[in-house]
Amino acid sequence: MESGPPGGSGPAEPGPRLRGLRGADAAASASSLSRFGAEAGCRAPAVAAVLPAGGSGERMGVPTPKQFCPILERPLISYTLQALERVSWIKDIIVAVTGENMETMKGIIQRYQHKRISLVEAGVTRHRSIFNGLKALAEDQPNCRLSKPEVVIIHDAVRPFVEEDVLLKVVTAAQEHGASGAIRPLVSTVISPSADSYLDHSLERARYRASEMPQAFLFDVIYEAYQQCSDYDLEFGTECLHLALKYSHIKAKLVEGSPDLWKVTYKRDLYAAESIIKERISQKVCVVMDTKEDEEHVGHCLEEMLKTELNHVKVTSGQDLQQIILEQCYNFVCVNVMTSDFEETQRLLNMLEESNLSILYPVVVISVHFLDYQSVPFGQKMEKVMQIREFAKEVKKRNILLSGLLIYFPQVENNRGLEEQKLRESLRQGVTIIAALIKERNSGLIGQLLVA
Amino acid sequence: MESGPPGGSGPAEPGPRLRGLRGADAAASASSLSRFGAEAGCRAPAVAAVLPAGGSGERMGVPTPKQFCPILERPLISYTLQALERVSWIKDIIVAVTGENMETMKGIIQRYQHKRISLVEAGVTRHRSIFNGLKALAEDQPNCRLSKPEVVIIHDAVRPFVEEDVLLKVVTAAQEHGASGAIRPLVSTVISPSADSYLDHSLERARYRASEMPQAFLFDVIYEAYQQCSDYDLEFGTECLHLALKYSHIKAKLVEGSPDLWKVTYKRDLYAAESIIKERISQKVCVVMDTKEDEEHVGHCLEEMLKTELNHVKVTSGQDLQQIILEQCYNFVCVNVMTSDFEETQRLLNMLEESNLSILYPVVVISVHFLDYQSVPFGQKMEKVMQIREFAKEVKKRNILLSGLLIYFPQVENNRGLEEQKLRESLRQGVTIIAALIKERNSGLIGQLLVA
Repeated sequence: MESGPPGGSGPAEPGPRLRGLRGADAAASASSLSRFGAEAGCRAPAVAAVLPAGGSGERMGVPTPKQFCPILERPLISYTLQALERVSWIKDIIVAVTGENMETMKGIIQRYQHKRISLVEAGVTRHRSIFNGLKALAEDQPNCRLSKPEVVIIHDAVRPFVEEDVLLKVVTAAQEHGASGAIRPLVSTVISPSADSYLDHSLERARYRASEMPQAFLFDVIYEAYQQCSDYDLEFGTECLHLALKYSHIKAKLVEGSPDLWKVTYKRDLYAAESIIKERISQKVCVVMDTKEDEEHVGHCLEEMLKTELNHVKVTSGQDLQQIILEQCYNFVCVNVMTSDFEETQRLLNMLEESNLSILYPVVVISVHFLDYQSVPFGQKMEKVMQIREFAKEVKKRNILLSGLLIYFPQVENNRGLEEQKLRESLRQGVTIIAALIKERNSGLIGQLLVA
Repeated sequence: MESGPPGGSGPAEPGPRLRGLRGADAAASASSLSRFGAEAGCRAPAVAAVLPAGGSGERMGVPTPKQFCPILERPLISYTLQALERVSWIKDIIVAVTGENMETMKGIIQRYQHKRISLVEAGVTRHRSIFNGLKALAEDQPNCRLSKPEVVIIHDAVRPFVEEDVLLKVVTAAQEHGASGAIRPLVSTVISPSADSYLDHSLERARYRASEMPQAFLFDVIYEAYQQCSDYDLEFGTECLHLALKYSHIKAKLVEGSPDLWKVTYKRDLYAAESIIKERISQKVCVVMDTKEDEEHVGHCLEEMLKTELNHVKVTSGQDLQQIILEQCYNFVCVNVMTSDFEETQRLLNMLEESNLSILYPVVVISVHFLDYQSVPFGQKMEKVMQIREFAKEVKKRNILLSGLLIYFPQVENNRGLEEQKLRESLRQGVTIIAALIKERNSGLIGQLLVA
């Protein structure tokens, strides 16, 4: 009935930028704004987002607050910012962090080039942090630099997979009804225990829902609710929809969310998030090669086999590398056939270093070489290709994971059929190795020369 | 407050058995039974478990029902059976599977050598499957082969990380109070929507709990409840505790469970389960080497460095391999110093093949060799060590993942200090590679020779 996290779509992006290509931004923005009209028949409101990120992550059982836990070496909160940022119609993103994490957060914003972010100090509870975020947007506050939005989204720093789709839904519903929130079916039955831990009664599962994030509100509705609510609410409450109902008398419109809205709560959720991110950035592989003419060439055979064996992965040939980098492909197989050294790989690495592609995710590059026993002795070829270790160390500094793949190119005299068959075996093993390197993205294996 | 999945303890095991060592079973059983006395001051009851496994896994969005989804190539349900099986005081485990999955399930039981399992046909709903499981244990049924237990555990096929501890708690509580179930705090606020999808009210999160599994019941209590309950309950109900309350008037005692009781529901949960399992079986590394005398030897240096760098991993030396295999160590680093070929690795592989260690988990073996430029030319050494590919193919059939690691052993004339420093650099890189191979356990990289 419900599907798992969508593997098909690419990762949510503010997007790496090649110099001079920022025009793409404006186009994306225009098309997103027009979605408001199509979706709800109403004009696009001014929208801001507030992200409480003051939590201590005690449920995780790790010393680092969960929003700062690294996934592929990048803090979780950066993925959530990335997901909000690529939605061009969100004008401001207010993040509430504790004083002690303020510098860490500034460092994250700078390193990953996040835009449209303002930081405010977190309160001691989630509600107080949100209230601080709202104050930064309210015009009645002194020194207010930001303009008051019509609609404000409230989201969690630890729900990194939020899609534009559901953001649009809650914003549109909030604009119409004053408040809105994403909900999900309950996974477990909910029960009410007695004071001495016996079952008092269980709730009928179908009649209830889990309240998730994002939520959205007309700014005045939620700001008024926060201004009126009691200290008890600010200390012990958890639910903004409840505040809107209690103090502003607004019944929130509920919107069905997808399973990937889930909240990273336990250590296992970090594992799951890492696997989802790895899977998403492994969906596209670009094959670059130093020959474009002979279609029967071994490089083309490899490309064909990649397409057949990795049938869930989109394999493209790197004829317009600038465009492919722009489309956020994080995996490159670079085939060196014509030359015996690293010319083609070097050219690719230079382009990758010039782009900002590897700022957000580690980019995998596999430099493929062919070994023909008859023309070059094994040891000599190996020594030559082992140079890759030096390149790999160098590009690792730019978050590029380079390794080498040597494919045994058998030549059987007077038996083309056997030769062909053996070559296909080698290529198939090469594809298995390429798939493993792309899937795992483990920096412990950079600079290695693998043999198929 | 709550910790993540316990990484410290080893994986739950029925345990690989070395021939002639089955006596360990009886000892474990006696000590577990005595825990009943210590825990609750009462005699050990006869206990059976019922596992409904008839689900179709539609929430996962994959064609295979989730209990049959592979994790490290083994179906999820086998991990759950393993977790129940190692609890020696559970006498019978009844699994309810659909007719179409009956043969698959029999294959799983045989391949992974599960014991004490009986299969019954699943019903069309979860409650009907459980009822079928209970009937198989009730003495009033014709052809009943099993004896009626005093207490019956009900668990889910898709909660593989259940520990003996919580099983003991629910069984003890059921013995005393008639019914018992594990609960967890709610992760999200629960709300009640109106028919037209507006917020009606939200529940106060602290007053409710999620009802999880395992649950346990006096057999007569739950069997009576199932015999009396309505078709509506059997079709639409989800909660056994509710049936015990409604039809047998028993208020279940609720027991706090740990976070690892969670139910594999979405694709992300499969990812999380895989990472947890990989982490658990990577906690111990055994170093085997072909020399035991010279403590300053390079092999010992590697062992020391493994201990320092992998400080969360227990590194033991393989002096009593039989014992280490028995204690379920799934990672071996085999250091060949004295001989230039694979003698030591071959000896280890033979022992592993004779044990049943790799039935349940893939075992990683890394054959370490040293390269001394001065005595053997690089190419020649490489060609020799490349033989590993043939061994690797062979042992892969037995679920052993073999790869090679060549450590560059620098010799700098008249400069011991520099020599030492360079060696330490090589060893450190070797440790990084070993850690990557153990962590990822990717069969795509078997037979590869990695170079540090």
